[in-house]
Amino acid sequence: MATSAGSAPVTAARKPVRAAVIGGGVIGGGWVARLIQNGVDVGIFDPDPEAPRKVAEVMANAEHAIGRLTMAPLPAPGEMIFARSIADAVAGAELIVEAVPERLNVKQAVYAEIEAAASAEALITSSTSGILPSDLQDEMDRPERLLVAHPFNPVYLLPLVELVGGRSTTAENIERAASFFAGIGMHPLRIRKEIEAFVADRFLEAVWREALWLVKDGIATTEEIDDAIRFGFGLRWAQMGLFETYRVAGGEAGMAHFIAQFGPCLKWPWTKLMDVPELTDELVKTISDQSDTQSGMHSIRELERIRDDNLVAIMQALKANDWGAGRTLSAWETALYDMVPAAAADDSTDRPIETMRQQVPAAWTDYNGHMNEARYLDCFSMATDAVMRRIGVDAGYLAAGGSYFTVETHIRHLDEVTAGSEIFATSQVLHGAGKKLQLFHHLYAAGGDGESQEPRLLATGEHMLIHVDINSRSSSLPSDAVAAKLAELAAAHDALPRPEGAGRAIGS
Amino acid sequence: MATSAGSAPVTAARKPVRAAVIGGGVIGGGWVARLIQNGVDVGIFDPDPEAPRKVAEVMANAEHAIGRLTMAPLPAPGEMIFARSIADAVAGAELIVEAVPERLNVKQAVYAEIEAAASAEALITSSTSGILPSDLQDEMDRPERLLVAHPFNPVYLLPLVELVGGRSTTAENIERAASFFAGIGMHPLRIRKEIEAFVADRFLEAVWREALWLVKDGIATTEEIDDAIRFGFGLRWAQMGLFETYRVAGGEAGMAHFIAQFGPCLKWPWTKLMDVPELTDELVKTISDQSDTQSGMHSIRELERIRDDNLVAIMQALKANDWGAGRTLSAWETALYDMVPAAAADDSTDRPIETMRQQVPAAWTDYNGHMNEARYLDCFSMATDAVMRRIGVDAGYLAAGGSYFTVETHIRHLDEVTAGSEIFATSQVLHGAGKKLQLFHHLYAAGGDGESQEPRLLATGEHMLIHVDINSRSSSLPSDAVAAKLAELAAAHDALPRPEGAGRAIGS
Repeated sequence: MATSAGSAPVTAARKPVRAAVIGGGVIGGGWVARLIQNGVDVGIFDPDPEAPRKVAEVMANAEHAIGRLTMAPLPAPGEMIFARSIADAVAGAELIVEAVPERLNVKQAVYAEIEAAASAEALITSSTSGILPSDLQDEMDRPERLLVAHPFNPVYLLPLVELVGGRSTTAENIERAASFFAGIGMHPLRIRKEIEAFVADRFLEAVWREALWLVKDGIATTEEIDDAIRFGFGLRWAQMGLFETYRVAGGEAGMAHFIAQFGPCLKWPWTKLMDVPELTDELVKTISDQSDTQSGMHSIRELERIRDDNLVAIMQALKANDWGAGRTLSAWETALYDMVPAAAADDSTDRPIETMRQQVPAAWTDYNGHMNEARYLDCFSMATDAVMRRIGVDAGYLAAGGSYFTVETHIRHLDEVTAGSEIFATSQVLHGAGKKLQLFHHLYAAGGDGESQEPRLLATGEHMLIHVDINSRSSSLPSDAVAAKLAELAAAHDALPRPEGAGRAIGS
Repeated sequence: MATSAGSAPVTAARKPVRAAVIGGGVIGGGWVARLIQNGVDVGIFDPDPEAPRKVAEVMANAEHAIGRLTMAPLPAPGEMIFARSIADAVAGAELIVEAVPERLNVKQAVYAEIEAAASAEALITSSTSGILPSDLQDEMDRPERLLVAHPFNPVYLLPLVELVGGRSTTAENIERAASFFAGIGMHPLRIRKEIEAFVADRFLEAVWREALWLVKDGIATTEEIDDAIRFGFGLRWAQMGLFETYRVAGGEAGMAHFIAQFGPCLKWPWTKLMDVPELTDELVKTISDQSDTQSGMHSIRELERIRDDNLVAIMQALKANDWGAGRTLSAWETALYDMVPAAAADDSTDRPIETMRQQVPAAWTDYNGHMNEARYLDCFSMATDAVMRRIGVDAGYLAAGGSYFTVETHIRHLDEVTAGSEIFATSQVLHGAGKKLQLFHHLYAAGGDGESQEPRLLATGEHMLIHVDINSRSSSLPSDAVAAKLAELAAAHDALPRPEGAGRAIGS
């Protein structure tokens, strides 16, 4: 089987059925968060008694970030199982992620324990930032299944993962890994030859070296260096990299001309900074003090949230432009929408169908201390989407050019609800024939914890939808298959009582 | 006068009254575009007969980009005057920007011509990416007024400008330059000591060197290198730089601990790539061919637009989070709004009042490729809040225990709108007396870029609200002050025609 190099598309993205993560630090915790959020069960092993707390902190950040990143229907979260041993963690795992300290002998000892207990088919990936996979796999029984899968912090948000095989790794296993990582929303980059530090970290290393000299020589402080990056080329690099940026700068004359112009600078006497500066206590203190001045007004937790909110906003911005990391986000969302019809789906027809259920996020609360009025329509929109999928309007149908657009909405906001409460919606087809679909939703707070035992009616939503041809954006008839499913549901719901409040106008 | 170092705020941002730009290439043209867009008249000199065409191309890109970047009221564009000589170009200019080829003798000859004709008070800034200002000013009559102001392509969008003084430059002149550049929406970064290539380009240089080795050794292609940047650390660097990112990664243990962990990597045997690779014809051809494969499907003009649209979207995303380059954008917009006298709140009563205006965020887009139905209610909720503030229901009123809750909503979704479009709402009071408040909103897409010139009606929203006592959560009368303001607005709006669609029920 041939290896697809570089950023070639992954032919069959498929998330692993079960995974294990060995090591619960920032990187291991980030892997756990990404996997869990994608509905993958994860066994974790870390001997540190603080690991569960640390992983829980990363999970909290990840939930906040991913809740803001996408409106696509996330699967039910995977189960997180803290295991007592590596053997327990890896049992039954299809993908085993190693994220332990960067020492070859430590990693090799972990692989020996993994191999003694894991399935013979399990794929093992190392999160190392620099050790060669040929060295890592050197003492393994089945070295062909080990490769480096180097992620970037925060792992639950940044899409890049560098895949690097060693001399024994098979091309087939690199493709399996690419499929798994694409399946959890990442951008696998297959590195063609192994080299210390791979690709991205070589750049980070080079920049770090220059930055240390600049601080040491008093040219710029840590904050000034960061500003030189984030107000300038950092904005370019979030979307294009080095070469495409220079291609544009070079203009019509082309890349070769650009290199001819820029190349000679390489020979200028800037070589001093290629040495490695001595990391004296004094230099470490200078950096540490400057960093305190720059960022000390924010706690690390605050900085994490700021960073994640910015990453979310940047990725959404790129998604709107269908470019780079935004395109990776789109592909992941499409897959999430695809996964929904198979999952759940209330298939009763003798009563309104349950079409959404979740907790009220804190972010949905407004200055009145309750779920904001606009969030009621979020709930009804989700309920409408569930009815859509039920009648066969799924990602495939959308891709083929059909959809329903809402043309009219009537909401009665009957009661308040607060953050953390469990809410659910039921949906009834009032009319479904030809181009038209009229829906009536009830939104409830579930009984139980903090609520009375009976569900409490929060709102009703009445909606008129029209089927459209997504290309011409004009009304059209649904496919025969969708029409048939809708007719069946509409006929069953015709037997239900007409809901109180249907057909009402404001103030009537 | 003391120099404020680094990114210290500029105390008195003030754009120059008139400027000159010597050199009309990509950088010179970018300076012209930024100055003109900020209402500054610019004299240009470039002996190349193609210069007017090249500058016009940059101007077209800049107009497209800045039109999307901000909704703030731009001043009338400055005048662009192609001069027949340097003397003509610099006459009367307060700021003279030099952007000629990177050769010391060429630049020095240009300064001699400038000094022969310019005002004695004119500030002269060089756009050089690497030559020391002390060398540049060495033969000048008034060397104290020359400094480097190194911008980044595209100059009309990227906010960074590195300010570097030479041995004769006065601190006062560096502050004058900082004030001018802040006045045209930039982020001046004062570099503490002069050094070849200053700060940002040292990093670009280091990364470029590594990248050449990686291509030469067949580790990665130009596209793979770009992907390693833009799917990973490039997203981090658009918002935080190197040190703040690592501070977060290091966690509670602090920066010194992070360096202790990461520092030793510097001693690993990765030194080969610190040499400068020979730029053989073969290597240049390899890069050029790979770049064609990567980006050749887009013309340079297309790539420029893609780059600019992405930069705009990223800066808007950061603005929403009040961070980094987004904060620079906000400051510039605030200054633009300040310059427009009495453009304040809409206090008309003879027509529906404007109650919200913004661009459609990318995150509001759903699988149908348009603003999701639920976001229509977000817009109307914002419009309702604006009416609330207008009648005195503000933070103080809420704290005192009064508010309005929406009890019923009717939306007609009349047309689609996509991410990036400017939308606005107008609001009319249909009824406002006792505990009740009935509102009718219209949501429009503004005319302009990508839209027809006339606003396009997207939706109407009709809403019934009830005044409540926030403590008892039961209905109550508003305060006399609120009731009076509401009565006044309601009386004025009673004279307006009743909006089409008011009082409608679904399917009626």
